Amino acid sequence: MAVYTEVTDDALRAFLLEFDIGDLVAFRGIAEGVENSNYSLKTSAGDYILTLYEKRVDPADLPWFLGLMEHLAKRGINCPLPVAGRDGVALRVLAGRHAAITTFLPGVWPRRVGLQHCGPVGAGLAALHRAGADYAPVRPNALGPDGWAPLLARSLADGGAAVEAVQPGLGDELQAALQGILAAWPAGLPRGHIHADLFPDNVFFLDGRLSGLIDFYFAATDLLAYDIAVCLNAWCFEPDLSFNVTKGRAMLRAYAATRPLTEAELVALPVLCQGAAIRFALTRLYDWTNTPPGALVTRKNPLEYVRRLRFHLTAPDAHAYGV
Amino acid sequence: MAVYTEVTDDALRAFLLEFDIGDLVAFRGIAEGVENSNYSLKTSAGDYILTLYEKRVDPADLPWFLGLMEHLAKRGINCPLPVAGRDGVALRVLAGRHAAITTFLPGVWPRRVGLQHCGPVGAGLAALHRAGADYAPVRPNALGPDGWAPLLARSLADGGAAVEAVQPGLGDELQAALQGILAAWPAGLPRGHIHADLFPDNVFFLDGRLSGLIDFYFAATDLLAYDIAVCLNAWCFEPDLSFNVTKGRAMLRAYAATRPLTEAELVALPVLCQGAAIRFALTRLYDWTNTPPGALVTRKNPLEYVRRLRFHLTAPDAHAYGV
Repeated sequence: MAVYTEVTDDALRAFLLEFDIGDLVAFRGIAEGVENSNYSLKTSAGDYILTLYEKRVDPADLPWFLGLMEHLAKRGINCPLPVAGRDGVALRVLAGRHAAITTFLPGVWPRRVGLQHCGPVGAGLAALHRAGADYAPVRPNALGPDGWAPLLARSLADGGAAVEAVQPGLGDELQAALQGILAAWPAGLPRGHIHADLFPDNVFFLDGRLSGLIDFYFAATDLLAYDIAVCLNAWCFEPDLSFNVTKGRAMLRAYAATRPLTEAELVALPVLCQGAAIRFALTRLYDWTNTPPGALVTRKNPLEYVRRLRFHLTAPDAHAYGV
Repeated sequence: MAVYTEVTDDALRAFLLEFDIGDLVAFRGIAEGVENSNYSLKTSAGDYILTLYEKRVDPADLPWFLGLMEHLAKRGINCPLPVAGRDGVALRVLAGRHAAITTFLPGVWPRRVGLQHCGPVGAGLAALHRAGADYAPVRPNALGPDGWAPLLARSLADGGAAVEAVQPGLGDELQAALQGILAAWPAGLPRGHIHADLFPDNVFFLDGRLSGLIDFYFAATDLLAYDIAVCLNAWCFEPDLSFNVTKGRAMLRAYAATRPLTEAELVALPVLCQGAAIRFALTRLYDWTNTPPGALVTRKNPLEYVRRLRFHLTAPDAHAYGV
């Protein structure tokens, strides 16, 4: 369910009058997405996406997100381009929510990841990193390394019973792993703007080519190679949670063809992957232990990322990923 | 959440090869709808809807539903037209489900019903009834009067505790009302194919005109005037559950302009409205008392229809509805 806020016809009609994008033709809620309300909007001028920002997005961050998308789109990245109203402003208010209209991107996100997707994702990520290099504003990564210990502490706030219920010993395992990751976290690696959530449902393909990158609402300024680590976690494990080194190699090679990785980035790859795995394990664990029964949210299993973490903890070096 | 079945890219691509509707451009889940999985499908030929039929729809009924839609569309009703594959067959299989592609209808369903919607809904319903008159196949209404007592019995199967928990005395109230409704149920009224679920989210408007009727998966062969009673329940009560007789009058007048109501239909209007109200109260009550905690389904409050039922039980005659 990705429609949390309903928009009345009158409100929609009045909202569209603030834009120069033709007349309303159709308006349907989109099922994908879990953070915001997304609508597919068709006008006489074409197809658009209308997003209403729900409470998990900090309104103070919205200009940064929209600015980044505009910056990237103007540099040729296939990402949603915010559409400005007649007054030149893209970020507006609708139905009591901050809201924006963005361009529609063709393509289909891959429900089943194949080897053929991994190269284009690596190349697309590198292109995104290069295109973002001259976007000056900075957004600290609230879900980066500094956020992980507080996140785990919040899941353990009941003395650890809820986490223990997910799997006996899980709290201790995560605390030990986190301590090691933070101690080994690399300093001095190239930084820039990262997508930070480039999972398959945020990447569209069309005719075998990457046609769109969407959902920039976790984007932040952080280590570029950490973004690769997120993608290795998100794209290169098989359904049985074994790591597919052929997929990893395809992704890393395609990335490096656009932005070569430094020696320090390659050395740090295992710990970056550990960090990315624990980040998703921790947010899923928090949601899992804090979702009331009956809530209209699909809880994702944190253990899938604990198992990825265990793989990364055994990776001796970057060769484990296909370098 | 209205996507229960995920379709892989490969399966979708193979499926589209069975049709002559151009190349895939985009494919997104639709949030609306609760019974089936619906996708918005864009091809180089235009916009379509792909529906995967989930387990609450009996596959044996699908040819009847699709045949009715095709019949109605060809007679000028703005309803989805099933798109046949290259072999001439519209009802197919995809991702282990029965599936069909239908045409896309423009428009927006009214989130807030106004008086201006009620006339077009009445006129649209009458046009649907007329256009369906020469569709020969018959589908008994499983959720018609014969189905109500068994439905209530299933909600009371635990001795009535679950229904009592919804509201003390509710089981007795519904049993008494149902007995009266069934005893007074009219015989001999004009019959035909009815939509049976023409709620606001199944009706699209564009530029103030009705532009589409969708979701025919409760359609059946039953009393035509019962379909009006469903619409009076669905469209003419205010958010505080008071009946708006002006809306009722607009709907009934517009309906009668296309298909005049017989005297017997007018006399029966209160009991038909009672029946429609108890039908939705009973299905909601069943879902309410049988939805496990944590299920990804929005439970609708049955009491909203119990309150409508109470209004109809006090209606002396058709004048209460604006006749």
